[in-house]
This record gives sequence, structure tokens and C-alpha cells, in this order.
Amino acid sequence: MRVLILGGDGFCGWPTSLHLSARGHEVAIVDNGARRRIDRELGAASLTPIEPLAIRLAAWEDVSGRTIAAHDLTVGRDFEALVALLGDFRPDAVVHFAEQRAAPYSMKSAEHKRYTVGGNVGATHDILAAIVESGLDIHLAHLGTMGVYGYGCAGAAIPEGYLTVKVETAEGWTAREILYPANPGSIYHLTKTQDALAFQFYARNDRLRITDLHQGIVWGAQTAETRADPRLINRFDYDGDYGTVLNRFLMQAAAGYPLSVHGSGGQTRAFINIQDTVRCIELALANPPARGERVKVMNQMTECWRVRDLAQMVSRLTGAAIEHLSNPREEADENDLVVENRRLLALGLEPITLEDGLLLEIAEIARRYAHRADLSKIPCVSCWNAERAAATAPSMGEVGVGVMAAE
Amino acid sequence: MRVLILGGDGFCGWPTSLHLSARGHEVAIVDNGARRRIDRELGAASLTPIEPLAIRLAAWEDVSGRTIAAHDLTVGRDFEALVALLGDFRPDAVVHFAEQRAAPYSMKSAEHKRYTVGGNVGATHDILAAIVESGLDIHLAHLGTMGVYGYGCAGAAIPEGYLTVKVETAEGWTAREILYPANPGSIYHLTKTQDALAFQFYARNDRLRITDLHQGIVWGAQTAETRADPRLINRFDYDGDYGTVLNRFLMQAAAGYPLSVHGSGGQTRAFINIQDTVRCIELALANPPARGERVKVMNQMTECWRVRDLAQMVSRLTGAAIEHLSNPREEADENDLVVENRRLLALGLEPITLEDGLLLEIAEIARRYAHRADLSKIPCVSCWNAERAAATAPSMGEVGVGVMAAE
Repeated sequence: MRVLILGGDGFCGWPTSLHLSARGHEVAIVDNGARRRIDRELGAASLTPIEPLAIRLAAWEDVSGRTIAAHDLTVGRDFEALVALLGDFRPDAVVHFAEQRAAPYSMKSAEHKRYTVGGNVGATHDILAAIVESGLDIHLAHLGTMGVYGYGCAGAAIPEGYLTVKVETAEGWTAREILYPANPGSIYHLTKTQDALAFQFYARNDRLRITDLHQGIVWGAQTAETRADPRLINRFDYDGDYGTVLNRFLMQAAAGYPLSVHGSGGQTRAFINIQDTVRCIELALANPPARGERVKVMNQMTECWRVRDLAQMVSRLTGAAIEHLSNPREEADENDLVVENRRLLALGLEPITLEDGLLLEIAEIARRYAHRADLSKIPCVSCWNAERAAATAPSMGEVGVGVMAAE
Repeated sequence: MRVLILGGDGFCGWPTSLHLSARGHEVAIVDNGARRRIDRELGAASLTPIEPLAIRLAAWEDVSGRTIAAHDLTVGRDFEALVALLGDFRPDAVVHFAEQRAAPYSMKSAEHKRYTVGGNVGATHDILAAIVESGLDIHLAHLGTMGVYGYGCAGAAIPEGYLTVKVETAEGWTAREILYPANPGSIYHLTKTQDALAFQFYARNDRLRITDLHQGIVWGAQTAETRADPRLINRFDYDGDYGTVLNRFLMQAAAGYPLSVHGSGGQTRAFINIQDTVRCIELALANPPARGERVKVMNQMTECWRVRDLAQMVSRLTGAAIEHLSNPREEADENDLVVENRRLLALGLEPITLEDGLLLEIAEIARRYAHRADLSKIPCVSCWNAERAAATAPSMGEVGVGVMAAE
């Protein structure tokens, strides 16, 4: 099939583009380089040395004999160009990664909040409106997040998008299925819940075929395709804004830096390996909803872990120390989490579980590139509100790693 | 108290500004003239001859001896100016009308959809982020819509924002209170549901005090204050995009044009008179939620009517004919609607009900200005999707009123 990947130069978008190309699909990328621009803004960089997109694409052609076209346009701004591209390329499916995806970045300042809301909600709405304008029956697969559900609903497994509830009617308490009530934990997560409402609207009003993949926290960096050539290497973020928890731990261990656990570490989160991410997207594209069907929501995660248990595992494997820091996020210190993920398993996903061998492989990447790390970028300095900022001020006010580590 | 009115030159914003000023509050208006610009875009105009904002404000000073300051800035774009204004004026409350408020306009084209999403979601987020930036404990009152609830939930009254449901947990079916599941019927309504999520987030994360008023369809045009001088007259929209159903019927009757009922007219909607709108806002400002409290949602409506019953009432009063047209909207042809509105009644609202005397007074306004009407602007030409456009094509393709009337 023909697949257009919005945000195809990013952490998930790049390996997805290669995976779908390797599997014989005709792939084209839309990317405006926003993620690389943010690296420059933050003075941060991928731990791994990623190549410019043009070199990546040339390398892929060398390695695979397959070409991937790239289009530099901003989804959410260049609307006419997007409509024209849909008309020219006539994709069977569009995969939508073209959003700012870091919760801490979204909370750094009013400008970062505004950028995230305007960019994400605008990009999602533009692709929906563009599909309607194109008149084509394009399947849209969007990368959402488990975080839209919130993490406060102890006692019941989180279903795949829709929740059966009973409501009181004239006939007594009657079962209804509703979109799971959103409880976003950051501006980034808020935008994903706003996206979800747009998907519901366009699926109903224009009968668009839409899949929303509620993804867990991604760990790992490489896939079969990104390993095929050094020029294809995927990005590996470790900074306080874009680094995700397990990858950060592995990099911190490699750099001899104590593992940063914020609060008690009792936060339980859902996880998925990057290789499974790309497989899930392929499965989602192979199994679209029918026209007129409601939005198909699948939980794209394979296991749940408590943050302090992850830290202990990495500490046991590597000997790294663990350090408890105050939590800059407005969130519960402890939560349970049970998630249903039967739909992707039923489609054939065979999960890569978080076991020692693979962890060590990733730790090895972290070690190989540890010399590239700027340790001053490790601390999480983005606070969720004034109270959290005040609580973390003693360490945030200081510059440099030593002070953070000594807190 | 000091009150900043965003969108204070509009249909609801203007009479609200005058009402609050008359009641002794210090009022300032923010308005960028967007609604008047849209009139020019549509080649439409208020049936009543409204004055430019500067003349309105000078007239109000003549009549009342009170001044209202006006600031020409775009909420959703001029963020720094908005933050500075909050710091200078130090309002106790902000009333937020600064959104594109017509469902048909929001569905006219991809550009109108994009304008509505970007403008409304951006404006709402900007005022929230600006209040956080200001560091002030400002109460935000937002004009939402009954339409966020959708109209498909027969059998249960629509509560005020929150719905008690039972969810299945390890302990069996347990009661929970959730935000009423959104079911927006247009892009305009979608943006209000996206706003609602932003309100929830900022109330929880930053402890902002927020009231969301879910308003019914407003009828009438004048209030005690706008009647005080011809230069204070409020706008009266009758065009196919901005005219609301009852005011349109009254104007159609005055102009000798058949009353346009789309579909069977079985749509039941909630209504409120413009005089009650301004009273409700005053009541909401006098009764804000506490800091740390969840968003306070109140249903700002006073009665429900079926569209065809309204048409029959106006026909009986005026002798106008009724004409059934195909429905350009993607919506149920018939629905029941029961709405709770106890909160504003408990605060002291004494509803103006839709009875003959007041209807005739509004019909009189319509008659007085009927010579200003451009009948070619009456038809609803905005279709919700390709199917609805195809179904209405035979009439939409023709220009002029005669053909519409003959359908």
C-alpha cells in the first residue's frame, strides 16, 4: 500500500518509515525538521549520531534499493500543500506522528504550552480536514498515548478506548459505551485528548476511517532496519525534556550518573519496545476500521512497570546508584495500572518483553555513545505549576549536575 | 468588581458589558472586530444598524456616565499583550466570548473549519495560560454551549456538566462522576468540547477558578441597557450562518418570507432570552468556584422547544407560511431533550419565558428593520458533509430566494 508518514524523521516516525518500506509498502515522509529544531533550542542532541534526513534516505536506498520521498512542509500550517500532496500521492493510509511529543517540553513555559496546543491540535485537525478535501478514502492512523486515560482509576483495567458504564435512565441503570473519560496529566497529554474528540467528530460526520493507537512509553532505539547501516541509526534522547524514563536510566548508568527517580518512583506506566511500535503500526494499517465505523482505539503497549522497579532492575544490571529527587510533575506519587491490550495481540503482535538481554544491548549503545552526552542536560527542569516549581527550587536554582545529584 | 470581557463587541458580549457596567462593575472590553469582519466576508450585516464600537462606548458614557475601556487585540495571537493587560487591569473576572460561535460558518469550507479550530482552541488556551502567567487569582467564566452534550441521549436529563455513572471495578459496579461524554454536532461544537478539556486541566493543574456556562440558543436582541439609546442597539443576525432559529423565524415573518424548517423540524433545542444571558453571567461572576475546586458547569438555558413547534407559534402569531427544506446538517431529524438548569435558578434567575408578548416585541424590531434585510442571505448554504451537500444540491446550486422558497 501507499503510506504517507507525517513526522517521518522522528524517533518513532523514522523506524516506522523504514519498517513499512522494508515490508514492500510505498512510503513517503512529511517532516519539517521540528524535532531537530527543538534539539537546537534546548542545546541538546540525540545520544546517537543521527544523520540529516537526506543522508538517511540515501543510505536506505543504498541498503535496500528502495526509495522514500520526503516533503518538507508543516502539517497544521501548509494546508493547501498537504491537500495537494494527498491528491498526488493518493495514499491508502496516513500515519500521523507530526506532533510535539514531550510532556516536560510542553510544560516549560507559556510559549511551550502555546506551541504544543497550537501545533498538535492544528496538525491533527489539518490532516482530518485535508482528507475530507481530498475526497479519498484514506485510513488515518494516529499515535496517541496511554496518558490520555490518566492514571487515577484504580480497580479497573483500562479498556481500549471505550468504557462500558451504566447511566440512569427512565428504564433504570442502562449500559452505554462511552469514550473513556480523559484525564490528561500535561499540556501534551491534553492535546491528545483534544485530538481524540476531533477523531470522533470526523469519523461520525465525514465517515473517515481512523485508528488511534494509545501508546505506552517507548524504550529501546534500534529496529532491524535502523541497525542495517550506521547512517540509519535512530535517535536516542536522554535530556530532561525528551528522554523517556527507561532509556534515561540506561544512559545514566552508562555515564556513571545516578538514576533519577522523581518522587517515590511509585508511578506505574505502560511500556513498549520500539521494534514493537513499528510492528503495531503495520498491524494497524493492515486492519483498518470500515467506513462509517467509530474510531478504532488500540492500546499499543506490552507491559506495565513501576518506575522504582525499573530503576532497581537497571541498578542491579549495571551497578548504578539510585537517587530520589523531588517530582516536578503534578501527579500522584503512587498508582496502579492495569491495561487491556488484546486487540494488537489478537492481530498477531508477539511482544518483546523487558528482559535482561535486550536491556544490556541498549545499555551497550548507551555506553558506546556516552562520550557524546552532555550531563547538564539530564535534570528535569520543567515544573508543572508554581507549587511544584517552588518545591524544587533549591535544586533548580543551581546550575550543573553535581548539585542535582547531591539533593 | 473589575471584569474583562473578551469579545465584548459581539451579540452576547456587548449587552453583557453594558449590563455589568450598569450594575456598577468596572468593565473593560477586548475585541478585535472579528465578528464585523465576518459580516463583510459574508456580505451580510446585522438587521439592526449597529454602531462602531467607539461610538457605542461614547454613547454609553453619555447615557450612563460610566466608561468602558476597549482594547483591540486578538486573543489566541497577541499573548504578551494579553498578559500585560491582565497585569495592568488586574481583573477579578474574565468573561470569555472570544470565539467563532456559528456552527454553519464553522462548516462552510476547510478554511472555515481551520479558522474555527485554530481561533477558538487557541483563544481559550491563551487566556488560561495568560491567567497562569499573571499569577493573579482571576475567575474565568466561559460561554460554552448546550451542543457539547449532543442530542442523542434520550431517556435521561442532561445534568450540569457532570454525569454520575457506574463503572465495573473489582468491588462490582461503583458510582463515579465524570464529565458528560461529549458528542459535538459541528466543528464549532467540537472546539467547545476541546475547550472543556483545557478547563479541566488548568483547574486541576494550576487551580484556576473556572465557570463554564453551557448556553442554549439565544433569542431576542435587546436588553434594558441596549434599549437606552439607539446607538447602543444590539446586533440581530438573520443570515444562514449566524442567524439563530427563533430570531430568523421572526425576521422571516417580518419580511414576508416563509419560515425555513430544515428536515422534519423535530430537533428539540434549549433556549434562553438575551436578557437572561446577561443576568446569568452576572450570577456566575457573583458565585465563582473556590480555588482548587473543579470546573463549575451550569446549563444556561430556560426552556426547550421543538423547532417545528416554534415555527407554528410564529406562524400563528404572524400568519407566515412554513416551508420544509432538506437539512444541510448531519444530525438526527427528531430528538427529545430534557435539561437540568437548577443551579442558575437556585442563584436567583427568574426566567423570561417564550410567550406571545415578548415574541411580538421582537417581531416588531424585525419589522422596523425589515427594509435592511438582504433576503438572499437567508438560506443555509453550509452543508455538514458531502452526502448532505449532494442531497441539498438541487437548491444550493441555484442563486436567489425564489428557488429556495419553491423547493
